[in-house]
Amino acid sequence: MDYQSILDRVHAAVKPIIGTGSVASYIPELAKVAANQFGIAMVDLNGNVYQAGAADTPFSIQSISKLFALTLAFHQEGDSIWSRVGREPSGTPFNSLVQLEQERGKPRNPFINAGALVVTDMLLTHYASEGGAGNALIKFIRKLANNDDISYDRAVAASEQGTSHRNAAMANFMKSFGNLNHNVNDVIETYCRNCAIEMSCVDLARAVTFLANHGAVPWSDEKILDASSAKRINALMLTCGTYDAAGDFAFRVGLPAKSGVGDGIVALIPGECGICVWSPALEESGNSYAGSVALEMLTSISGRSVF
Amino acid sequence: MDYQSILDRVHAAVKPIIGTGSVASYIPELAKVAANQFGIAMVDLNGNVYQAGAADTPFSIQSISKLFALTLAFHQEGDSIWSRVGREPSGTPFNSLVQLEQERGKPRNPFINAGALVVTDMLLTHYASEGGAGNALIKFIRKLANNDDISYDRAVAASEQGTSHRNAAMANFMKSFGNLNHNVNDVIETYCRNCAIEMSCVDLARAVTFLANHGAVPWSDEKILDASSAKRINALMLTCGTYDAAGDFAFRVGLPAKSGVGDGIVALIPGECGICVWSPALEESGNSYAGSVALEMLTSISGRSVF
Amino acid sequence: MDYQSILDRVHAAVKPIIGTGSVASYIPELAKVAANQFGIAMVDLNGNVYQAGAADTPFSIQSISKLFALTLAFHQEGDSIWSRVGREPSGTPFNSLVQLEQERGKPRNPFINAGALVVTDMLLTHYASEGGAGNALIKFIRKLANNDDISYDRAVAASEQGTSHRNAAMANFMKSFGNLNHNVNDVIETYCRNCAIEMSCVDLARAVTFLANHGAVPWSDEKILDASSAKRINALMLTCGTYDAAGDFAFRVGLPAKSGVGDGIVALIPGECGICVWSPALEESGNSYAGSVALEMLTSISGRSVF
Amino acid sequence: MDYQSILDRVHAAVKPIIGTGSVASYIPELAKVAANQFGIAMVDLNGNVYQAGAADTPFSIQSISKLFALTLAFHQEGDSIWSRVGREPSGTPFNSLVQLEQERGKPRNPFINAGALVVTDMLLTHYASEGGAGNALIKFIRKLANNDDISYDRAVAASEQGTSHRNAAMANFMKSFGNLNHNVNDVIETYCRNCAIEMSCVDLARAVTFLANHGAVPWSDEKILDASSAKRINALMLTCGTYDAAGDFAFRVGLPAKSGVGDGIVALIPGECGICVWSPALEESGNSYAGSVALEMLTSISGRSVF
Repeated sequence: MDYQSILDRVHAAVKPIIGTGSVASYIPELAKVAANQFGIAMVDLNGNVYQAGAADTPFSIQSISKLFALTLAFHQEGDSIWSRVGREPSGTPFNSLVQLEQERGKPRNPFINAGALVVTDMLLTHYASEGGAGNALIKFIRKLANNDDISYDRAVAASEQGTSHRNAAMANFMKSFGNLNHNVNDVIETYCRNCAIEMSCVDLARAVTFLANHGAVPWSDEKILDASSAKRINALMLTCGTYDAAGDFAFRVGLPAKSGVGDGIVALIPGECGICVWSPALEESGNSYAGSVALEMLTSISGRSVF
Repeated sequence: MDYQSILDRVHAAVKPIIGTGSVASYIPELAKVAANQFGIAMVDLNGNVYQAGAADTPFSIQSISKLFALTLAFHQEGDSIWSRVGREPSGTPFNSLVQLEQERGKPRNPFINAGALVVTDMLLTHYASEGGAGNALIKFIRKLANNDDISYDRAVAASEQGTSHRNAAMANFMKSFGNLNHNVNDVIETYCRNCAIEMSCVDLARAVTFLANHGAVPWSDEKILDASSAKRINALMLTCGTYDAAGDFAFRVGLPAKSGVGDGIVALIPGECGICVWSPALEESGNSYAGSVALEMLTSISGRSVF
Repeated sequence: MDYQSILDRVHAAVKPIIGTGSVASYIPELAKVAANQFGIAMVDLNGNVYQAGAADTPFSIQSISKLFALTLAFHQEGDSIWSRVGREPSGTPFNSLVQLEQERGKPRNPFINAGALVVTDMLLTHYASEGGAGNALIKFIRKLANNDDISYDRAVAASEQGTSHRNAAMANFMKSFGNLNHNVNDVIETYCRNCAIEMSCVDLARAVTFLANHGAVPWSDEKILDASSAKRINALMLTCGTYDAAGDFAFRVGLPAKSGVGDGIVALIPGECGICVWSPALEESGNSYAGSVALEMLTSISGRSVF
Repeated sequence: MDYQSILDRVHAAVKPIIGTGSVASYIPELAKVAANQFGIAMVDLNGNVYQAGAADTPFSIQSISKLFALTLAFHQEGDSIWSRVGREPSGTPFNSLVQLEQERGKPRNPFINAGALVVTDMLLTHYASEGGAGNALIKFIRKLANNDDISYDRAVAASEQGTSHRNAAMANFMKSFGNLNHNVNDVIETYCRNCAIEMSCVDLARAVTFLANHGAVPWSDEKILDASSAKRINALMLTCGTYDAAGDFAFRVGLPAKSGVGDGIVALIPGECGICVWSPALEESGNSYAGSVALEMLTSISGRSVF
């Protein structure tokens, strides 16, 4: 079955549940988003785009930004990043401090908030001179998504920063263990700005295609990561990309994926395509409900999963 | 490159590190095993066997038995088993009670000891009348491995039972939460017996081939699990199969795998083959050191991984 | 004000709340006890008895037995017991295993269940030859209470043992750390039997009077503990005697005390008297509700507390 | 034996161990203090002062300030403070975040750092208009100690603030749970300033005498707290005043006490006197080593303890 037919079938099937769940409310600006929206897109290794629903509507990528930040840091530093952040599933909620205390300030993986703060700290070291880590990340994402209009929403960034006491707690905590080099406020500000980047499903599906293509952007052949590193990022997405529901997600969907509280989920089929689904109502674990179901259907219908 | 060449290259490459690490010492009988042994085997979907080193030497499969016990319980009960055991990575050591207390007696997944005890309890319910759950599991494994000589080592089982106070603690604990139906001693005895089953690398590689073949035994076409269930077991192996090093294992190796303190690791390449490697010296996480390295090399050399 | 007047005032004041709370239900035999009962007794250093309400009604002393078991073990072993059990408040529920795992099988104090199991194990070592630790403890308590009719209720002991999976979990867990010398079943059996000892408020007030008298039984001058050891037991009662409500209890009542789920609480005023109150309905922390209030009133009315 | 003789004997006895342990090093300014110093003072209810060693040398009171801050907040707000801070021993180190997460931002007691930050936040609410909570506390302490020269050391306050990332973590964390009303930086600054107050043993022994006198300053008869509240503060000191060694401290010393990493310990004998001992080398639990031993000897020699 061709990709467009798959997306159309998935779209038709999830229609009854779009809007089920609750919109993330802890960031005031995001709580305003209408719940009953849905979009899905796939981009194959020739750069062909397939889409259904509101796949061109930009939304706040939130934690999906962690994937791009990690890629950029990994690209810059290579395996030395693992001395400051682990690569194991956390088994606890994404913003928990318990594990961080037991493991003396080294976050379990780069996809929980604590880990993403450390990655942000790394980017601040590398991109201080070029106008800031925030700009560097947006520039990187524009290249991956082949879209120079991508930017971040200042109101969302400010809203997020105003309610980021727990992130500040984690950043201070890691600083007390010596695992943060920059000023806590700078790290938080850059982190919130990255989370507030806005992209559509089509943008995001395009932006992750290099991970399905051994680390190279298909349409430009630019090597972002070597094949082994790309494979490793995929492994991290599968084991840690969907918070403490990663096991369940792997069980049901079986694809490397990264979700965000802005309700998008990116995924990919190695060797085939990048995928993004979006629907702003979350299940308890913090992942988009209709989005998870859509991905589960996509793998069932297509018979594609990594297993 | 053909499978035999891959195995020969892996075997040659790991020779210098065979014996590095420490043999599991908490089960007295297992502490007697010589550390400097190594074997590896692959079985493709036509049933062809490729092997290197001591791939015909039987060893104690230990926690690898959890994979077969889970398959048998899943085969019997289907998705209802997930009401009693989760499918998330635990993030804590395989025999921890902390998480079990927080989650009120429901183990995180079927591959930590607590989860395997619950699965054993399920088997006791299903196979009480046919001479016991232990016999049923051995019969099942003989069929999967196509080898009627497979049995368990009574001395190892007894040795393990004599030192299983922590397993008894977990079993009693779960019983206090109502998540164990049978007598604690019966569950422990069956569990220890299953762990003491002896198989060679060739036996084990053959026994997991159905998981690479959509749930069907290649040479008999017998359907053990439907394709979707087989894929799900593979997902569980990838996220939870190698204790609290599952993230690192996925990162380095990128294949569904299940390890045991008897020093074997089974793995599989979906759609291609079953694999087993064995070397009796463990790294800190409880996985075979030379075995992990061998699998990492195998995926590097072959370019095969699920990512 | 004389003791009798104090007790009468306390009794009159608590009448409206007697029966408020819920009777411990996890031991079936204890769930049968009528909630609307109340008794209180004080015994001064001359052996004079003051009482109000049903102070002669025997009840199941449950965890109060831990105080006598500790005294007997401390009497036998002295300060060496602290190598196997701590003396810090636990900060977690009385039957939690989390802390036990973090502290590698050494219970926080002798008044949580895990600690009492270790103390029971010590008594089994000392009294194996004299017909058992259970008999030794009853004999000891009879002497302290000056009442040879004190015994234990077999039905309660059996009922408790039948539901003691969590205690069995803790005992096995400690055995896995090497902190239990005897067979788990023997320890549990003796422990449950000790908990099932039946005494009245008058018996119990008398039995703790030696702790208010520098370690000597007032009417016989028999030295049970030296003055320093008696003071230390009192300190333990104050910091650890009322489960995870010890801070609140010290704050409100300000006397060394030990409570039991059988709804009794013993307390004492150093240099003055032993006290026992009983009322079978518990507040959330596991202490008798009317009993706690009665003791709080007793210290308010009398102006007596250790602070 | 009179107080002076007791102090002289204690002083002579501890001489060999003065300097044993390690000076707190996490606050750079405090790490400069010479370890081999010792002072001790007692003040009776007539205001008579007894002293030995360097009892007039001012030192950084550090966490002892938490006692005065609590008293001032309790004086202002009464029992409503317990809705924001508990009164149970924490069972974990003084700066742990684990418990704070489990209990959703409500600190266990006012003597761990998190609790003291909440108390500081309360004082900021009450004393914003009078030139700040810091000034109010110093003014309060000057009155209690009858010494208008008491002030704080700006270098120590600054040094502490520069290394207070973990306190900032806790403050942000509590703010994320809504348990902090003021700006995190303001709370931290005031807290660090309070910790940097300098007093001698004589000052401190005098300043706690009201707690031994039913809440009234002996020489002025000014009622700081009512008798019941004073008793309750004493209970808190006994159960929570010496970090996670409170049980051991009650066991060995048996007096209400509050220690600080500046190496001082205040204590009191209810109805008799205030006490302070100081010696700048800590045992592992964070309490002054020679100070703890001195207090243990003081209670042994004098036969005085609350038990």
